[in-house]
Amino acid sequence: MHVPRNYILINGVPGDQVSVHDRGLLYGDGVFRTLRVLGGCMQSWPRHYRKLQQDCSALRITCPEAALLFEELRRLIEQRPDGVAKIIITRGEQTARGYASAGNMIPTRILSLTPPLDYPDRNYSYGVSLRLCDLRLAHQPKLAGIKHLNRLENVLAAAEQSAPDIAEGLLLDMFGNVIEGIRSNLFMVRNGELFTPNLSSCGVAGIQRERVIEWADEYGVPCWVRQFGLAELLGADEIFLVNSVIGLWPVRELSGSEWSHHPISMQVQEWLSHAYD
Amino acid sequence: MHVPRNYILINGVPGDQVSVHDRGLLYGDGVFRTLRVLGGCMQSWPRHYRKLQQDCSALRITCPEAALLFEELRRLIEQRPDGVAKIIITRGEQTARGYASAGNMIPTRILSLTPPLDYPDRNYSYGVSLRLCDLRLAHQPKLAGIKHLNRLENVLAAAEQSAPDIAEGLLLDMFGNVIEGIRSNLFMVRNGELFTPNLSSCGVAGIQRERVIEWADEYGVPCWVRQFGLAELLGADEIFLVNSVIGLWPVRELSGSEWSHHPISMQVQEWLSHAYD
Repeated sequence: MHVPRNYILINGVPGDQVSVHDRGLLYGDGVFRTLRVLGGCMQSWPRHYRKLQQDCSALRITCPEAALLFEELRRLIEQRPDGVAKIIITRGEQTARGYASAGNMIPTRILSLTPPLDYPDRNYSYGVSLRLCDLRLAHQPKLAGIKHLNRLENVLAAAEQSAPDIAEGLLLDMFGNVIEGIRSNLFMVRNGELFTPNLSSCGVAGIQRERVIEWADEYGVPCWVRQFGLAELLGADEIFLVNSVIGLWPVRELSGSEWSHHPISMQVQEWLSHAYD
Repeated sequence: MHVPRNYILINGVPGDQVSVHDRGLLYGDGVFRTLRVLGGCMQSWPRHYRKLQQDCSALRITCPEAALLFEELRRLIEQRPDGVAKIIITRGEQTARGYASAGNMIPTRILSLTPPLDYPDRNYSYGVSLRLCDLRLAHQPKLAGIKHLNRLENVLAAAEQSAPDIAEGLLLDMFGNVIEGIRSNLFMVRNGELFTPNLSSCGVAGIQRERVIEWADEYGVPCWVRQFGLAELLGADEIFLVNSVIGLWPVRELSGSEWSHHPISMQVQEWLSHAYD
């Protein structure tokens, strides 16, 4: 990507190179976050940092202090008030050969800020087309929910044949349970209630998903985190996708089914666009 | 790792840094091989290259030409005739955000040569202790067998509590099938026949495993690639581990069971030590 070096900080220093001994490269041994920067503000920073801490903790990576990351992100944002920030934290540089790591490794932090992407307005108002991916997600409870750097499943799913007007791919697990989009979390609406897949065996638990669950709680809308399959999803009244960069897209079409009214999706979309905590 | 830059070539150039936009770092989007260099010779180079090609092909990464990699490895070996060579091939540098990749990406090749490791003689003659890992391997047929850069399962397994005299960890899958060691393939011997786990759902199919299967064929020893569980493994007459760097280690101990005689393991070990094809 053509990101000027001054929009990248590696351990606080402008640059665009990392060591070939970094375990992020060698094993995908690290985690990341992608967040929206708007008008000089990082959206949902406390929430992103909390999730970063949780993910680091799950892999026993030492999470850098919030103040340090915040200050470094500020340095990038001073130069570009709008964009998408990415934070990668790896376990650090390998000091000996092999999968085992020394206990006292110094994590590598890679912060970058790229220009905002322009998604079509119709994605937000009219909705998007979703395609069913061939790839099925594997069950690995020890990695489920974590936004880690082992993303070959997403890479393979994104590489599948797809029409240009398809905005996102739907991922099921090996047993046919609906899990998520390739780069988003998914909700369905049925009889005024929300449902989102259980991510205890696979998938990435994003912070927008967390916020939608809180929205439901605040507005007294029942929200269920549970398993469901494609047939149940296709019978939903509404489906929508969320992530920190896109916000919320209603789903217009999936596997021959169509949805043209998205009243609850629109309420949540409106609420998300004002909630930056 | 303190590998001098002159023992590392990145796309043919001495160095020790890669771009932060490399998909190897961002997504673990790449493959690797580790091979033994002895007396100025790369052991089993044609076989390693063939496997590298297969693994690249499975991920639709353009595999660099054999002649190019061979020539670059020669440049490293001229400076150090004995050691362990590692070849990493990633899909290359990201040109746009997201999991999807451009079709015409130029892969990154990272070649390094580190000093040989000294394993204790007793690992080869007396055998090693194997411990059962808590982590269970996930089933992902689209990635099974491939030596790719998504290695968090191995990292977590290697990080489990272990005594210092334990040489390797045994990995089962989610259903309790025996799969492999953290960094080796596994065989058991029963009534003069060989058995090695089926790796169509998870695990890495190493080239030493392939060679042992060929040894069995050459010597008329029946060799079965199939599922088996821990109970069957513990009832084996012999167990042994193989990989390209260690060669072959008989297993002395696992989960309270002990094996003190390894006649077939020793025959295979002897044969492997002379077979460099």
